[in-house]
Amino acid sequence: MEKADTILTNAIVLTMDGSYHIYNPGALAIRDANILAVGLQDDIEKAYTTDEILDCGGKVLMPGLINTHTHVPMTLLRGLADDLRLDVWLMGYMMPVERQFVTPEFVKLGTKIACAEFIRTGVTCFNDMYYFEDAVAEATAEVGLRALVTQTVMKFPAPDASSYEVSLALCEDLIKKWKNHPLIVPGLAPHAVYTTTPEILSSIARMAQEYDVPVHFHVAETESEVSNLRMEQGIPVIPYVRRFGLLDTKMIAAHCVWVDEGEVRSMQHANVGIAHNPSSNLKLASGIAPIKRMLDLNCNVGIGTDGPASNNDLDMIEEMRLASMIAKVSTSDPTALPARQVLAMATSMGAKAIHMGDKIGSLVPGKRADLILMDLSPIHNQPHFRRDPNGIYAQIIYAAKATDVTDVMVNGQWLMTNRVLTTIDEAQLIATASEMAHQIDEFLKNREESVLSKLVAIGGASEEESFEVQAKVSVADLEPVIAALARPDVEIVRLRHYHEYDTYFSFKDPGQGRLRYREDEFLGVDGRVESVRSRLTLIGETNSERSGNASEIFLSRSRYLAPAVHSLRFYNEYFKPERSLEIEKNRLRYLIRFQGIEFFVNLDTIQKPFSGKFVEIKSRTWSRQDADNKTQLMQDLLIFLGLEPSAMVTEDYVHMVEHLLGS
Amino acid sequence: MEKADTILTNAIVLTMDGSYHIYNPGALAIRDANILAVGLQDDIEKAYTTDEILDCGGKVLMPGLINTHTHVPMTLLRGLADDLRLDVWLMGYMMPVERQFVTPEFVKLGTKIACAEFIRTGVTCFNDMYYFEDAVAEATAEVGLRALVTQTVMKFPAPDASSYEVSLALCEDLIKKWKNHPLIVPGLAPHAVYTTTPEILSSIARMAQEYDVPVHFHVAETESEVSNLRMEQGIPVIPYVRRFGLLDTKMIAAHCVWVDEGEVRSMQHANVGIAHNPSSNLKLASGIAPIKRMLDLNCNVGIGTDGPASNNDLDMIEEMRLASMIAKVSTSDPTALPARQVLAMATSMGAKAIHMGDKIGSLVPGKRADLILMDLSPIHNQPHFRRDPNGIYAQIIYAAKATDVTDVMVNGQWLMTNRVLTTIDEAQLIATASEMAHQIDEFLKNREESVLSKLVAIGGASEEESFEVQAKVSVADLEPVIAALARPDVEIVRLRHYHEYDTYFSFKDPGQGRLRYREDEFLGVDGRVESVRSRLTLIGETNSERSGNASEIFLSRSRYLAPAVHSLRFYNEYFKPERSLEIEKNRLRYLIRFQGIEFFVNLDTIQKPFSGKFVEIKSRTWSRQDADNKTQLMQDLLIFLGLEPSAMVTEDYVHMVEHLLGS
Repeated sequence: MEKADTILTNAIVLTMDGSYHIYNPGALAIRDANILAVGLQDDIEKAYTTDEILDCGGKVLMPGLINTHTHVPMTLLRGLADDLRLDVWLMGYMMPVERQFVTPEFVKLGTKIACAEFIRTGVTCFNDMYYFEDAVAEATAEVGLRALVTQTVMKFPAPDASSYEVSLALCEDLIKKWKNHPLIVPGLAPHAVYTTTPEILSSIARMAQEYDVPVHFHVAETESEVSNLRMEQGIPVIPYVRRFGLLDTKMIAAHCVWVDEGEVRSMQHANVGIAHNPSSNLKLASGIAPIKRMLDLNCNVGIGTDGPASNNDLDMIEEMRLASMIAKVSTSDPTALPARQVLAMATSMGAKAIHMGDKIGSLVPGKRADLILMDLSPIHNQPHFRRDPNGIYAQIIYAAKATDVTDVMVNGQWLMTNRVLTTIDEAQLIATASEMAHQIDEFLKNREESVLSKLVAIGGASEEESFEVQAKVSVADLEPVIAALARPDVEIVRLRHYHEYDTYFSFKDPGQGRLRYREDEFLGVDGRVESVRSRLTLIGETNSERSGNASEIFLSRSRYLAPAVHSLRFYNEYFKPERSLEIEKNRLRYLIRFQGIEFFVNLDTIQKPFSGKFVEIKSRTWSRQDADNKTQLMQDLLIFLGLEPSAMVTEDYVHMVEHLLGS
Repeated sequence: MEKADTILTNAIVLTMDGSYHIYNPGALAIRDANILAVGLQDDIEKAYTTDEILDCGGKVLMPGLINTHTHVPMTLLRGLADDLRLDVWLMGYMMPVERQFVTPEFVKLGTKIACAEFIRTGVTCFNDMYYFEDAVAEATAEVGLRALVTQTVMKFPAPDASSYEVSLALCEDLIKKWKNHPLIVPGLAPHAVYTTTPEILSSIARMAQEYDVPVHFHVAETESEVSNLRMEQGIPVIPYVRRFGLLDTKMIAAHCVWVDEGEVRSMQHANVGIAHNPSSNLKLASGIAPIKRMLDLNCNVGIGTDGPASNNDLDMIEEMRLASMIAKVSTSDPTALPARQVLAMATSMGAKAIHMGDKIGSLVPGKRADLILMDLSPIHNQPHFRRDPNGIYAQIIYAAKATDVTDVMVNGQWLMTNRVLTTIDEAQLIATASEMAHQIDEFLKNREESVLSKLVAIGGASEEESFEVQAKVSVADLEPVIAALARPDVEIVRLRHYHEYDTYFSFKDPGQGRLRYREDEFLGVDGRVESVRSRLTLIGETNSERSGNASEIFLSRSRYLAPAVHSLRFYNEYFKPERSLEIEKNRLRYLIRFQGIEFFVNLDTIQKPFSGKFVEIKSRTWSRQDADNKTQLMQDLLIFLGLEPSAMVTEDYVHMVEHLLGS
């Protein structure tokens, strides 16, 4: 009789091997970190002896679950901001907070919280992508879980790297440090096509081949990612990354929501693993990936939770259930992704998807002892039908809860026994995390007190203060002004025709000023739209300073933050204005020189809501003296243009329209 | 100071009232079955005194969840059969088992299991539809939960009623018995439009108005339900049921997956409550209901789990999460159904949807004390951001698990304290349920041993044994036979032209026979398809008996089970044949009289896979003597038709084709 370290007996053993063997009552023998034997209890007891027998009490014994795509340190950002658009969520909250808070200590703390949650919910291996992946590896190895840790490389500065060259150096360090660790597999994570460059992708492919490590990549998560790439490159994601040699690496493609049939076939041919993320794709409204088709074409598809900031948990039992359900509804076929196949995605097939199928994913001799026990006795799993051997898979996928997991072993070591964690002090983690959450709350609270700092927080916008001398006159007809501007005393430097769509956000505290989102349609001589630009301007309180003795000519103060790279909807959700107001106007914008000084003369027709026609004269100014001089000159210009000083208005358009609307 | 029976203190109180007040630290005072007061702890402690203070330890205190559509006794059928088409699942498994097993005792047991699960997962009220609803009411009242119990009325015989008149009488008894119970509200459940008649719907509407009780109805669950009704009646479900006065009742419409804008507006106008069932609609691939639109139009939408046989649990925390997620992905809008709104659907709005908004759904003085405590300290809920008051709703919807519910009170009575049930003996329920599951397994095992009994189990098919004398001859050309049949010695009683598509299922045990699914296209004189019929035939082993001395003329034995009311796909999934084979043939079917005896003469061309042309002569027979006479006469007929006895074949088409295909 051969000697085993431990024998687990009296279990319903789901091997998830190639033939889906079930042994009931089954047993499993372990030696060192590996599975020595698995089979019917009688057979195992006849062939093996041990000093340590563990009676599983009729529980289900199965391979640990494999989470094929996640960002574990983001447990610390769980619940930070929800029910938002992807761009608002990412650029308004996640990235600013990450820029401020992410350090190796943050990453270790977040990873340990994730590990605690993984162990409690039966996950024994995960595939991570984040910054400071070395810290993820450290924390995971300390806890005793298994992970593929992939270091992010992007074209933007990241919390752990000022440039992509620095990120690549971190990758190489990571690989060298962890290459032969029993629990950790290092890898590379070029974030996505839209955050990388051809140089980055080529460098990654070279390094992956040189060191034979996996490449972890976001692929076709959103429709716009794909349509933008098609617009720029004429091809979708998979043919694009093939150019740089990525399909010749051990690639893992996360999401794959918007891939076409040809891309699926290419991925199958290149043995690219696919990580399906049901919750995240639903919650961020990315779409439903064509998983049934991928499985029909023999792709290796695993399941992932994505990061806990977009899920908001790391519960693979829930993800499995969801994977099955959304495949059914999206194909109108209730037989799609049956329970056994879904459990394979989270175990044996998931292992193949992350290129670790030789080591983990099923309970077969020679593989690592990564396994879990599930208690199906709680009332929500009752009763038990045992007529159909597939019934037990359906029970796990459709009825069981993650909290039914009672015991977890990784690499031959127990990490949880009878729901007690053996390698993690949860209370201490929670206390430290609470302190961190409090700091993040304070940071965001401070930021949200000021529209300006919220603007600055989303980046890409620069603070630029300016003052203008400004006069505005209501007119019945613009033609006489146009005629006057054609007279030789005026030099027309430039004339542009715009159609302008302005949206003004106002806030509870008027001291915040107003935020204007403007879309300028630049019209050609034939009146057709030649180009469009969008700009965002934070306008301070107006009329605060009168200039000189001309009481109707005033100084206005603005902070320009141009261009507006996001959509109006983005800004609306991000700034949450108390009110917003839309104004549409036609503008002939003259840049003229009058008595040696440049002025802008805007001939405006406020079309929606119709509020009349106006001539606006403006000149930028930098000093009080300059402002006084220009005010004087502006009075001359008004007379020259035949404008009635009595028709001067001091209100800006937004106030005028507000009064018109009676609000 | 007013005196309260109990005061709950030190809680984060989510009132779910009209203004979504949150009190933290909050307190709630209870007297008898009702909420006496709710507010900040300091305020409550100043105004009320009590002998019983319960410190909630910082947990969330909120209204109990309301499950607005379910079939609770079906806990006993949970996991019985999964990953099947709706019709296979329903008619192949659920209904046969229900016919066999559903009794008042079954219903009480299933209800108590459901109640245990409800209490553990924070549900304090549910809206049920099943048979023997009086037993549901009994069990629920014993446990102490609140329910709306609605008695099913259908045009078919049901486990509790041989006709709909009997069901209506049960309804009236139910109403009279429970009308004034503190926990139970009786109601009526005309199952769905396709299972009821105009008389049933009118009777229900009259009774509902007479007794002022709610009407619980499946509405537009599947696309085919709606398209069939449109085909038959020219209108969709809501205008159809309006005809019978149902919109004038307190109606609750479950599912509403395939309703149009007009129907949504009608439901809002008629104050019809809508019960949204995310898991069930996904798992059965019914579709995704347009919930965001319904909410935008101010409908009262609640959430339901549907029955635990199609879900497969009763976990409302999971349903809430899913409701939010599928609304987001189906509208491509991640801001759709934000967390707070979803929690309202499961509490305050859900109460309105089942017409109980005056009594339950929010923590406000005067309403019943139906409430739960949730512990947000487990690691999967960490950390806690408290900057945004909506954060706590997101935490409950996106991160929390049903197992975080620790305490449940209904009508002022604690049903669970610190995760211990106070009114249910779970172990005993589980033992009884196990015995029931074992009996059901045995019933299905016996059934599944025989193709014939599986056929009989799905009903609509009758067993009808017959024997035929049969001869078949291979010919090169059918024209000479047609010419011979035109001779005066033969009287042509009838001539039909068919195009036949046959699918033969064969099984591992050849003793089971073969099952043939045949679609007959009946062709008119112009060769166009005039009608199609489908028939299912179980064919016994052939060639078992030779008739008389003509060794090539034989008796065949069949059991007819016609017509085939389900699709080929249905039968394929239901019978799970080992192999299936398709044969397509062109058939001229003569019914002739020859020497005073009727014979069928089939002139067949086997087109796919092409296997030649054949003349088949058949005559039904009832006795050995008759068979011998007909065999003699058939030999004469063969000669008369100029057919070569040497070209006689004994194989039936399916064997012939199998040999041809080399299988």
